[in-house]
Amino acid sequence: MCLAFVGGEMKIVDMSHDLSMLTPFWAGNPEFNFTILKRNNTAGGFWYESNAFQTAEHGGTHLDSPSHFYQGSWRTQDIPIKNLFGPGVVINVTDKVLTNPDYRVKTSDLTHWEANYGRIPRNAVVIMNSGWQYKFPNKNSVFNTSDAEDPSTYHFPGWHEKAVQWLVDNRKVNIIGVDTPSTDYGQSKLFPVHVILGRHQISGLENVANLDNVPTHGAIIYAPVVKLYDGSGGPARVFATYDDAAVVCSASRTSLGISFVLLLQCVIFLVG
Amino acid sequence: MCLAFVGGEMKIVDMSHDLSMLTPFWAGNPEFNFTILKRNNTAGGFWYESNAFQTAEHGGTHLDSPSHFYQGSWRTQDIPIKNLFGPGVVINVTDKVLTNPDYRVKTSDLTHWEANYGRIPRNAVVIMNSGWQYKFPNKNSVFNTSDAEDPSTYHFPGWHEKAVQWLVDNRKVNIIGVDTPSTDYGQSKLFPVHVILGRHQISGLENVANLDNVPTHGAIIYAPVVKLYDGSGGPARVFATYDDAAVVCSASRTSLGISFVLLLQCVIFLVG
Ligand SMILES: [Zn+2]
Ligand SMILES: [Zn+2]
Repeated sequence: MCLAFVGGEMKIVDMSHDLSMLTPFWAGNPEFNFTILKRNNTAGGFWYESNAFQTAEHGGTHLDSPSHFYQGSWRTQDIPIKNLFGPGVVINVTDKVLTNPDYRVKTSDLTHWEANYGRIPRNAVVIMNSGWQYKFPNKNSVFNTSDAEDPSTYHFPGWHEKAVQWLVDNRKVNIIGVDTPSTDYGQSKLFPVHVILGRHQISGLENVANLDNVPTHGAIIYAPVVKLYDGSGGPARVFATYDDAAVVCSASRTSLGISFVLLLQCVIFLVG
Repeated sequence: MCLAFVGGEMKIVDMSHDLSMLTPFWAGNPEFNFTILKRNNTAGGFWYESNAFQTAEHGGTHLDSPSHFYQGSWRTQDIPIKNLFGPGVVINVTDKVLTNPDYRVKTSDLTHWEANYGRIPRNAVVIMNSGWQYKFPNKNSVFNTSDAEDPSTYHFPGWHEKAVQWLVDNRKVNIIGVDTPSTDYGQSKLFPVHVILGRHQISGLENVANLDNVPTHGAIIYAPVVKLYDGSGGPARVFATYDDAAVVCSASRTSLGISFVLLLQCVIFLVG
């Protein structure tokens, strides 16, 4: 028997890009808008600033709700909060993407991860790290095109539908994500990954930042999306937490009245 | 030496109200708007739905950035992610509010909490539970008025500036929150709580939901606000995590090469 342990100070990593006028949106979306309502000293003697903003759901670091590509699946407010986080599984394909921007994450990338770190945990948040984070917020770089208004010219990596179907059939995942604008790659025409995710009440996560600072395994990743009523997604402040201490415990159990007591012996390896 | 422990399954509590056309906004804010961009089957044979929305920053469950009432303090993107969570401290004043809707949380409410649960932990997220969650989303109920367009008629509880100043002077807090529309109470004219928070780079949290399901102590509360560039705040999907196991450990330490090993003996009391 072995249990998870939190020792020392918890680390936290911000995984969202800024949401701003510079945020790249897919062709055809309405413009992002930021309006200053007030930004001045008041008659009361105090400073006051306040703004409003308008955004399409599917730009910047955001969640795709299952309803986005599958009628009748969960809209944003329907997704239980427990489905918006889980053990982080970071699939690094930066090497492959360097020579092929149309790369799609394969089942063998997943089994390779498992060979190194063990079985993908239940309720995992599985995210492709393609090295795309450094291209933000330059729109032509993010869509890897000279004409960001024409989606047929987009060239960025994503997930292969066979790898996603393998996860659905063989593991239990809460979220599948990418550091690019879409879980389907840029050249996709029928978006099979989006459809599979929607059918199975799995959320997507797009334009994730800072994956180079998230442990490949052992973190917990949270994707708390704005609770937008009837949304097909929405902006999310994504983050990861982890502890740099590894621990192995053995436990024995003994009853004590209506409650019971667990006796643990643990060895913690503090790294660094 | 005693260390925190996570055993069994982590619990998670959703602490955000829906963001929708029904969300009550303070008088003078622009209307919330939700626009359906697409909601139909496509020529490709798959379902597709997508929307855009417009919102003022300070409605629904949202964060107040320090810049909101203090010039030059952190705007939304400036707040380090580590300042957006911390040990939860829930101050229950529902009894007092029943007889006085203008109640303001006092220093004695804080010292009373400490008498029961120990010193307020470092980096705490301290939130007033006034029972207000059940009034949402009815606008007149939330502002407790017959004329929600006139803020001089608002009657809801908040924080007294003396209690907030006591926290600033004597403890280290990351966030101070309420389940009502403002950290200052409804009848406030000069918003001294907002000003103190801004001066000290502390964020506010307003219209928090579901506090009755959050442990009074022992939870971790997260307030991951949308990373809105130059925002004075923004919508946040607030949540709490906790474990229902209590643990007491004793530890001894021994070196092992460049690393070291911690030997723990723990007793875990599993509740209920
Ligand atoms: Zn999307
Ligand atoms: Zn506010």
